[in-house]
Amino acid sequence: MNARRRGHMPHELVFLPLGGTGEIGMNCYCYGTGPADARQWIMVDLGVKFGEEADPGIDVILPDVGYIAAERSRLHGLVLTHAHEDHLGAVAWLWPQLQCPVYCTPFAAQILALKLKEAGLDSDVPVKTLPVGSRFAAGPFSLEFVSVTHSTPEPTALLVETKEGRVLHSGDWKIDRTPGMGAGIDEKRLRELGDRGIDALVCDSTNALRAGHSPSEADVARRITSLVRKANGRVAVTTFASHVERITTAIRAARSVGREVVIAGRAMRNTIEAARACGMLVDSGRLLDEEEFGYLPPDKVLLLCTGSQGEPRAAIARIAEDQHPHVALEPGDMVIFSSKTIPGNEKEVGRVLNNLARLDVDVITGEDDLVHSSGHPRQEELALLYEWVRPKALIPMHGEPRHLRAHRNFAITRGITDVMIPRDGRILRLAPGLLEEIDEAPFGRLHVDGRLVVPGEDGPARQRRKLAVVGTVFVSVVVNVRNDLAAPIELLTDGVPQGLETELLEASEQAFGSTPKPRRKDRAALAETIRTAVRRAADLTWGKKPIVKVIVTEV
Amino acid sequence: MNARRRGHMPHELVFLPLGGTGEIGMNCYCYGTGPADARQWIMVDLGVKFGEEADPGIDVILPDVGYIAAERSRLHGLVLTHAHEDHLGAVAWLWPQLQCPVYCTPFAAQILALKLKEAGLDSDVPVKTLPVGSRFAAGPFSLEFVSVTHSTPEPTALLVETKEGRVLHSGDWKIDRTPGMGAGIDEKRLRELGDRGIDALVCDSTNALRAGHSPSEADVARRITSLVRKANGRVAVTTFASHVERITTAIRAARSVGREVVIAGRAMRNTIEAARACGMLVDSGRLLDEEEFGYLPPDKVLLLCTGSQGEPRAAIARIAEDQHPHVALEPGDMVIFSSKTIPGNEKEVGRVLNNLARLDVDVITGEDDLVHSSGHPRQEELALLYEWVRPKALIPMHGEPRHLRAHRNFAITRGITDVMIPRDGRILRLAPGLLEEIDEAPFGRLHVDGRLVVPGEDGPARQRRKLAVVGTVFVSVVVNVRNDLAAPIELLTDGVPQGLETELLEASEQAFGSTPKPRRKDRAALAETIRTAVRRAADLTWGKKPIVKVIVTEV
Repeated sequence: MNARRRGHMPHELVFLPLGGTGEIGMNCYCYGTGPADARQWIMVDLGVKFGEEADPGIDVILPDVGYIAAERSRLHGLVLTHAHEDHLGAVAWLWPQLQCPVYCTPFAAQILALKLKEAGLDSDVPVKTLPVGSRFAAGPFSLEFVSVTHSTPEPTALLVETKEGRVLHSGDWKIDRTPGMGAGIDEKRLRELGDRGIDALVCDSTNALRAGHSPSEADVARRITSLVRKANGRVAVTTFASHVERITTAIRAARSVGREVVIAGRAMRNTIEAARACGMLVDSGRLLDEEEFGYLPPDKVLLLCTGSQGEPRAAIARIAEDQHPHVALEPGDMVIFSSKTIPGNEKEVGRVLNNLARLDVDVITGEDDLVHSSGHPRQEELALLYEWVRPKALIPMHGEPRHLRAHRNFAITRGITDVMIPRDGRILRLAPGLLEEIDEAPFGRLHVDGRLVVPGEDGPARQRRKLAVVGTVFVSVVVNVRNDLAAPIELLTDGVPQGLETELLEASEQAFGSTPKPRRKDRAALAETIRTAVRRAADLTWGKKPIVKVIVTEV
Repeated sequence: MNARRRGHMPHELVFLPLGGTGEIGMNCYCYGTGPADARQWIMVDLGVKFGEEADPGIDVILPDVGYIAAERSRLHGLVLTHAHEDHLGAVAWLWPQLQCPVYCTPFAAQILALKLKEAGLDSDVPVKTLPVGSRFAAGPFSLEFVSVTHSTPEPTALLVETKEGRVLHSGDWKIDRTPGMGAGIDEKRLRELGDRGIDALVCDSTNALRAGHSPSEADVARRITSLVRKANGRVAVTTFASHVERITTAIRAARSVGREVVIAGRAMRNTIEAARACGMLVDSGRLLDEEEFGYLPPDKVLLLCTGSQGEPRAAIARIAEDQHPHVALEPGDMVIFSSKTIPGNEKEVGRVLNNLARLDVDVITGEDDLVHSSGHPRQEELALLYEWVRPKALIPMHGEPRHLRAHRNFAITRGITDVMIPRDGRILRLAPGLLEEIDEAPFGRLHVDGRLVVPGEDGPARQRRKLAVVGTVFVSVVVNVRNDLAAPIELLTDGVPQGLETELLEASEQAFGSTPKPRRKDRAALAETIRTAVRRAADLTWGKKPIVKVIVTEV
């Protein structure tokens, strides 16, 4: 308990984000009810963020949930709004700290089960599977999965109700009136909730900078079908592996012109399996394995594959490098990138596009044609949700600071006056009364580094970022009891320009030689003197000071 | 001489790119004339490319011009088409290898002079300054600087004429009929050259994927002026430091509403000084220093500053972090990004945009309004140039493979049948006859690493890329003549998760202990045994194999 505010302890409904308010991904939000000294909690979503160049060697970043873990006796559940990695990818890593029931829809449960199994946790985690539309309770929280539309099956908004108030947590959503699958967005229920009164809408801001209404999946389906109809050669469609609706769209396009469908990429296979286990993709017919691709005539095949973000080991990247064991494309073939390039992946996607250009394959991306539509609401969709739900207050979530600010400014233009941009680790009171930041909680980042979870802020990635720029030098100095060298100093480098070793070794020797014998007794000081001398010598010639490690051994 | 083709040695006009045919930046093209065993050369442009995450610690990448340097007795000059870094930034690094005269326009000469001075080469390099429109000779080459329009002053296309043929090397260009400054694109001369006959057009492909005609600087000026007129608070405009035309546009917009102009950023100051030395910016009035910013009323100031690509130390990045010593922005102020985000810089630019959002400052980018226009030709501009010049053959240059391919395909639709996508290191015959790849030359990349120029392909950056992912472990082992340990093994790590040291040290000790004494005599083999054991132990716990350096010292 880090709560600083004490006093008469009013009962409050509070919001505490531990991730997802200043960057894309790593969604993790907590709702609390009751008095500050005995808050009851639920957590909504527990996602990952993928590592960037700034964190070399880190594939996955997790929110630090230590604050809630310390209060886990009063944590009544983790609710997952949908099956995307940035909403459930951290569960297998962090559930052992939380030890609470996990509530989700059947499709999310299927995706989660795979991850829990890999982590050896499948028999430990109590997963409560509930269909879209379910109302359920977790401790003092009354909850409801409200159906919305998004880019993976069974997306939900979550109604969070306590005796202090009612909040609608939007999850990831858009308004698609003609989706390719699923229950659609439950306008009727959302209007009903609006009639009953919503104290705060905690709402997706990803596309708040964009005016208008996003295209429907039906529009995308028409364009993809039209492109596939016109194609004479092979067609490959790459999209997000979890986008079952888009997978359906591509399969229907293929079937409409009598093309077989081949699937490449493990993640897409897993998604398809999970979808089928939930009764989806029932009319999709037989989906072929990549081994069969080469036996089909070019105009009788459509490949559905992973790699739309340029992931170097994914199917389309290997195909573009002509390194795929079973799939090869030729001039006249076509690749459709039915996806958006997530900011930060431009270089990687560009590399794949360039490799496809080298193969002389035609490429269609979302910049060329309507072959993708985002799963997040643009401004007119936000306005519609405001109209349905009529929230007293708005909290923009999901997005970088510029998206949150744009969402705030837009909401104000639409008449919502009580708007507050949340920050990770800040406890906001949602009800009663106006939004107010009332307290702070510790929060942070964890890195998945190899198989280990390590601190994100001051962990090994930070040291490696430095190594990446300046390289390293290793000096071994062996001294005898008379404080003389017992053997010549030895020096090795890595990541340092060739030819520098001699100079650096001489600098070590000079630093040793010029240290008076009595002062060599302080081995740590001797090591530091040599370290400084080597760094100075490197800087002089190279203009960089490497990481220098000196070991002084006494024999 | 690497020429493989021998025989009767016909006289040919050839093209040899050493950079700029498969990536953005690092333009370096050579033209050769005469027989293959005694080719006379000129080089056109010698630019840098900026380092990326894939090359940690490398700011600048240079083309390896060793092949031409080895033939420098027959190299008659280096011609610079304009003053951009990716066209002249490598001269100060590589001229010592080439030792030839450098031909350029006055503005490029000013920019180059700064660089040569920094490198201590200003009195060595014979720079021949020639105004736009000049015709000149370099050895057997007749050359002409033809005026075009682009995003820096005095851009030129280069006519290269030898007794075998005539080539138009487009440089970077667009067709702007209403530029903000400069001589404009010399349609009349280009048509005349077309009348005389152009064997090959070697042409900018950067925007070949884009249909239509790019907006004029006059259009951009109208929009920027309109935004500045409407602004009530401070206005900052960030653009490419070298874009004197845009700087002029912003200054005029400021003057039109009585705002003072403050300049922030060394690169922009240098450009302005160079421009003034060439008689440009004469009517721009007094430009203030950043120290004066704070004393001006918000509605009486316009800041022109560097950092449009998100460079972390540039003015706008520091302003956005509220860390600039003299400039602070507040809610209600406006920043115009009068620039395009160069692919690969999205994250960095995003960081600045997010920081500005945190300051609650309004931001206008090229995605929101017409506040930038590219300096490269879109398809209809390409078509116009084809029409003027009527080249027999086309060689797409400047661009990634997908841009080169798009340019080739577009040219074919416009009736040019002899089109060939060039590749770095491949010698193309331009005349006589059809385009043909006739030979290869060695080429490569050099890295500027600190103060040193090092090999790009197999240099220290490659080692550091590995260090960045797996970290490093140092092990010092001191053995005596009996092949026993003379002191305990010592081990240090960097970039490795904490707590692993003990395990790794134990692995070292076990590896030493389990090596029979006689086999310890082979110190290199002993070191390798320990290295392997440490890597295996790290992999077991961590899932990664660090770079392990073992020094075995004998006392």
